[in-house]
Amino acid sequence: MGQMKGKASIEFEHPPVIISAGSVVGKKEGEGPLGSLFDEIELDDMFGMDNWEQAESTMQKKTADLVIEKGGIRKGDLRYLFAGDLLGQLIATSFGTVDLEIPLFGLYGACSTMGEALGLGAMAVNAGYADQVMSMASSHFATAEKQFRFPLAYGNQRPPSATWTVTGCGAVVLAGNRKDGMARIAGITTGRMVDMGAKDSMNMGAAMAPAAFHTIEQNLEDFQVNETWYDKIITGDLGEVGRTILLEFMKNKGRDLSQLHMDCGMEIYDKEQQDTHAGGSGCGCSAVTLCSYILPKVQDGTWKRVLFVPTGALLSSVSFNEGQSIPGIAHAVVIEHIDS
Amino acid sequence: MGQMKGKASIEFEHPPVIISAGSVVGKKEGEGPLGSLFDEIELDDMFGMDNWEQAESTMQKKTADLVIEKGGIRKGDLRYLFAGDLLGQLIATSFGTVDLEIPLFGLYGACSTMGEALGLGAMAVNAGYADQVMSMASSHFATAEKQFRFPLAYGNQRPPSATWTVTGCGAVVLAGNRKDGMARIAGITTGRMVDMGAKDSMNMGAAMAPAAFHTIEQNLEDFQVNETWYDKIITGDLGEVGRTILLEFMKNKGRDLSQLHMDCGMEIYDKEQQDTHAGGSGCGCSAVTLCSYILPKVQDGTWKRVLFVPTGALLSSVSFNEGQSIPGIAHAVVIEHIDS
Repeated sequence: MGQMKGKASIEFEHPPVIISAGSVVGKKEGEGPLGSLFDEIELDDMFGMDNWEQAESTMQKKTADLVIEKGGIRKGDLRYLFAGDLLGQLIATSFGTVDLEIPLFGLYGACSTMGEALGLGAMAVNAGYADQVMSMASSHFATAEKQFRFPLAYGNQRPPSATWTVTGCGAVVLAGNRKDGMARIAGITTGRMVDMGAKDSMNMGAAMAPAAFHTIEQNLEDFQVNETWYDKIITGDLGEVGRTILLEFMKNKGRDLSQLHMDCGMEIYDKEQQDTHAGGSGCGCSAVTLCSYILPKVQDGTWKRVLFVPTGALLSSVSFNEGQSIPGIAHAVVIEHIDS
Repeated sequence: MGQMKGKASIEFEHPPVIISAGSVVGKKEGEGPLGSLFDEIELDDMFGMDNWEQAESTMQKKTADLVIEKGGIRKGDLRYLFAGDLLGQLIATSFGTVDLEIPLFGLYGACSTMGEALGLGAMAVNAGYADQVMSMASSHFATAEKQFRFPLAYGNQRPPSATWTVTGCGAVVLAGNRKDGMARIAGITTGRMVDMGAKDSMNMGAAMAPAAFHTIEQNLEDFQVNETWYDKIITGDLGEVGRTILLEFMKNKGRDLSQLHMDCGMEIYDKEQQDTHAGGSGCGCSAVTLCSYILPKVQDGTWKRVLFVPTGALLSSVSFNEGQSIPGIAHAVVIEHIDS
């Protein structure tokens, strides 16, 4: 079908349309600069459950229900669910989606999962494998800290390079053969593992920036465009440290991204007021920023075309404690305004 | 394109062909009934590395290289890699595939991962998103026991319902627009999470059997066939306990699967000689049995059409210790003989 572009990209013949999007976040995210844009702010970080993991599952379930309701969609019309989270064995997703009764492709791309979920979802819809699918990703500050770093009660210090895992879940419904919707997915560029030897679990931005750089460059090369083809190039959660590295790498390639680039992790919190150091992180960070902030701006035409690049660091407490590095991965999604 | 079948299935218009397959296993698997069929048996369970996780990564890398070599494939022609393992944050895959430099879709479906990887790989090839992709899954006895149950050194007892995690990695290369190859993928049925409340981490067969039943029934319904359309219906790692439950469920539906059904977990070890109780398990179990035993039998026409149904139990030590149940999932792949 001639949809392969270059080495790692696809240009969709029938760009799938995002017909509904929703976000559910925690209290801290609700207090941040994007607070008024989220659909639901849950003040109880336990979401009424007995433990953090069940809280994250409940957040996924709430988000899925919300997106279905907002879009006026019948649950039975969602043919596939592409979803993931940060936890071992995807327990937030496993337990969060069981009641949906939708065939599930479980994904793990660390914080790049929303990019992977959008990519595979769009591939399925464009190919005619489904009329409607849902793509979803979540993270929770407490489940992530417990799993990856220190128990919260330990109260360890955080260096300035550390990011703050977003408590949030974002989901969209993609549909085929439609012209009405929030935005369309024109293409994707799938990233590969990039290991530059980063070893600091308190500096994920440095671990992910090379992967973001690689995927963005691959996208520009595959689509034979330059960076100004996009109104915004939006990474997931590089934070301040990662952004600096990305801009430096890009500068060495002769590209000035200082105005074009935005990072979801730097938008979601107020660094000065919220003590979040380098920014927000987690799969939920890019997912909720997409659903609450980016998609409406594409829908109203403020941005005609953006490159959405969720970034993941393959941190694991097991490999980390064994002295391994932290490889990164980033998946890019070309999101376009729909001319009415 | 009219490829959607029923509620959860796809019938491929241009069935992708499996052009290469390979398996690398550990010593115990090499001593089992399928021993002579595996491509490589590694006698050192550490695969020459310093820890179990690196051993599993090395096993993935060896398998990928082997499949590329066996198929006379150029690494650069593999457009996407669909891969996963059982470990938190997919560390076996993350570190095992970084040198391949192939765009990666990281998957988590517990022991059903090979079904998920084959399904998404076939979807990509059939749609023209790639000429060639690799689908791969692995597990390692020592990394799995360490993560899910008890430290090996603890030497805990195992009830008869327990399975033994296979040390093994299986991978295939799928290609489009080809008639020569080992077998073709005619269709898939994607499973959903099924939670029947099983809570015994030493009885994964019982946790997975309902999911296997659900996916097989869905497949028969979606394709409007009965069970005898297949020469074999092959589950991943139900083991003896799970098989008994599946056959009972099927009997209640009026289907006799006693002769048609085979379980990879029951084929891979000699129960009497190898002290493996209910059978083998792990993503590697169905993956290596597929590559070494099933595909050759489909290729030579012994079996004209099989339904390959890797089964996964979403066990996690975190959710398990929090008293949660163990939901299951199963993904089915219709694999057919190619008439020459």
